[in-house]
Amino acid sequence: MKFISTFKEKTDYQQNEHEKLVMLLNVTRNISREILLDRLLLLIMDEVKRVLDCDRCTVFIMDRERNELWSQVAHGAKEIRIPGDRGIAGHVAQTGIVLNIPDAYADDRFNPSIDKKTGYITRTILAVPMRNKMGEIIGVFQALNKRKGSFNNEDEELLNTISVIAATQIENAQLYKEQKKTFESLVETLASTIDARDPLTAGHSKRIAMYAENIAEIIGLSHQEKEILRIAALLHDLGKIAVREAVLTKEGKLTTKEFEHIQSHPRFTKRILDNINFSSALSQVPNIAAAHHERLDGSGYPFGLRDDQIPKLGKILAVVDVFDALTSKRHYRDRMEFDKVIKQLYISSGTHFEISYVDALLQFPLDKLVSIMEQENKWGLDEKHLAFLSSFTISDVYQALSQENPGDDQKELMSVFQIYYLREYLAESV
Amino acid sequence: MKFISTFKEKTDYQQNEHEKLVMLLNVTRNISREILLDRLLLLIMDEVKRVLDCDRCTVFIMDRERNELWSQVAHGAKEIRIPGDRGIAGHVAQTGIVLNIPDAYADDRFNPSIDKKTGYITRTILAVPMRNKMGEIIGVFQALNKRKGSFNNEDEELLNTISVIAATQIENAQLYKEQKKTFESLVETLASTIDARDPLTAGHSKRIAMYAENIAEIIGLSHQEKEILRIAALLHDLGKIAVREAVLTKEGKLTTKEFEHIQSHPRFTKRILDNINFSSALSQVPNIAAAHHERLDGSGYPFGLRDDQIPKLGKILAVVDVFDALTSKRHYRDRMEFDKVIKQLYISSGTHFEISYVDALLQFPLDKLVSIMEQENKWGLDEKHLAFLSSFTISDVYQALSQENPGDDQKELMSVFQIYYLREYLAESV
Repeated sequence: MKFISTFKEKTDYQQNEHEKLVMLLNVTRNISREILLDRLLLLIMDEVKRVLDCDRCTVFIMDRERNELWSQVAHGAKEIRIPGDRGIAGHVAQTGIVLNIPDAYADDRFNPSIDKKTGYITRTILAVPMRNKMGEIIGVFQALNKRKGSFNNEDEELLNTISVIAATQIENAQLYKEQKKTFESLVETLASTIDARDPLTAGHSKRIAMYAENIAEIIGLSHQEKEILRIAALLHDLGKIAVREAVLTKEGKLTTKEFEHIQSHPRFTKRILDNINFSSALSQVPNIAAAHHERLDGSGYPFGLRDDQIPKLGKILAVVDVFDALTSKRHYRDRMEFDKVIKQLYISSGTHFEISYVDALLQFPLDKLVSIMEQENKWGLDEKHLAFLSSFTISDVYQALSQENPGDDQKELMSVFQIYYLREYLAESV
Repeated sequence: MKFISTFKEKTDYQQNEHEKLVMLLNVTRNISREILLDRLLLLIMDEVKRVLDCDRCTVFIMDRERNELWSQVAHGAKEIRIPGDRGIAGHVAQTGIVLNIPDAYADDRFNPSIDKKTGYITRTILAVPMRNKMGEIIGVFQALNKRKGSFNNEDEELLNTISVIAATQIENAQLYKEQKKTFESLVETLASTIDARDPLTAGHSKRIAMYAENIAEIIGLSHQEKEILRIAALLHDLGKIAVREAVLTKEGKLTTKEFEHIQSHPRFTKRILDNINFSSALSQVPNIAAAHHERLDGSGYPFGLRDDQIPKLGKILAVVDVFDALTSKRHYRDRMEFDKVIKQLYISSGTHFEISYVDALLQFPLDKLVSIMEQENKWGLDEKHLAFLSSFTISDVYQALSQENPGDDQKELMSVFQIYYLREYLAESV
């Protein structure tokens, strides 16, 4: 910060004061940048560790419903949880009193069980409550093992100040996270409600979202592209709301007219999604969701787009949509034999599908495939089978199935896979 | 902040330095509290005005799509917009250069048109660019009329520093706002999609959301309650997704069985909404949305709740839902005569409806009523009629309609009202 660097000529005492203010200002600026809760918490813990010159810092957040304190341990990782009224942090959360403990093991309130588990040796602890604007305790800051000596009064004041600043930022990040969750769960619920209008498509949108997510992982899409793909996958059949039920759930073959009516659904999907005020990050969702029946050679619908007119993520949806349709039981047929499914995808590559996404699908690990494919099925999965299948991909089972004289390994693979692929499908009723 | 107040004994120069740091820290803390964009912008402008000791401060946000700079003028008020490449702010937005202008009218880049309009006289201007993490210019800070003399170097540095801090907070608030908008527009789109499955219920959910909003205003609900009520109103018929189309759109009277099937929809509404991870602020939405067919005497459905078991906001939905049903054309009947609608609401008060909400409905201004009632109708509204109707309430027109010998004023009121109430309904086709 240019402004800060202009201050000069100070006595030692004032230098110290000055440095602390600059430091606080920097801490504040740094944490004000982050709106994603997990990253924010890790950032705060890092800042405190540096500022207090100590070995560890944990920010515990109060979960009043469960009477627990939780904390983030690493990016994307699960949080850790401890009882909300025990140990040093629990004591601070309950009483709101600052605890500055020079010798942890001499203090009755200290709970040594985590040290025992991890081999870490806690010596000094400084724990201060974190309060929101209304003065309610919403968490605890806990610093461990000051590098030199014990935590002093200045450390207490510093940590108190940081906890005040951090509290508002944490509450904002929580609001943001809650709202994102609300939106996403509305999208998911909507998707499964639409699929459930016809029991035989139950779970379709959720499954293709998961297939697409795995392909995204395999071909290395960005975080943002993954998010767009997920939302577009969940909402791709939204237009089916506008398709007549009698046609949607008709048993047996459809007439040409009925087929055309069903084919209008991606157009409705686009029309409905175009009404949604998507955030700029998600602005491509309508175009991608509507493109799931387009084909590279322009023979698809609703717009007959050609290869480079079709959005990349739409091409991925096209592959997983057909894959899920063929591997699901439908009104007019059972699941297609698995090797025929793959053969069909390959035959249609270049005209219908982009071959690289079919290739990516073939790298799918079989344990994941079976888990996704059978998630609506009330009959469970055998953990041992999953462990076995995890060493193989779709490509492996496809090769085995295509073999005239498969080896013993291949036979075993096929037999385990077919336990799931050929069994009766039994979906949860709505 | 306790920590800050412990610093003492400084020279004048150091005192000054120290004060600025404390001030910056306070500004940072204050603005880090606010996640709602309009409030945040007003807060920042206030803080800058105070810190720079000047007469006005405007934070302009760049809108690249429209090549405009916009700013918030007051809570809830519309923003002001100026061209993105003209005037002092436009110059700074384009070049990224700080402009410190001691005499505005002597500077060619200054655009005096706003002064002309408002009578304000701009003397001195300090304008600095606001940049995001990637260094892109996302807006401009503009301070006007330093109270003593002109803006100096220190002011420039201060404003630069504040703009850096504010930029991240503004970007976070924008993200939050975008996400809220995405969620709300998904809810709205969903509501109108469901209503549109039957052309004659088109717009029903949106209308009852607006009726409910006005009742909330009349009885003075909190901001939070209004938000819950709006979302619950929009989603109250979500369960109709699970109702068979043939029954939903049947012409003529329903059989008992069909009627029971339709009556299952609030139960489905609850079942679907219970799957949504609503933020804690919206956690009551499922219960409220599902309660729109409950009655005070326990004879309603789906749960047969009684008076104090029915959530307050659910009781409001019950009133506006019936009101909208009776004042809309349905498959099996035209709009009910308006005085009969009101009579029916009163007759059912105490057994079906809470009378205070029926009373609140009667205070509804007629211009608003007609605007909401006719919003799906392609035939427009006459501005003069609306202006006339704005002086009357539902209660007034009800009294006029119930009169055996209405006065001339009442006759005029009825004739204008009935132009809209009795005309053919012509909805936009889906």
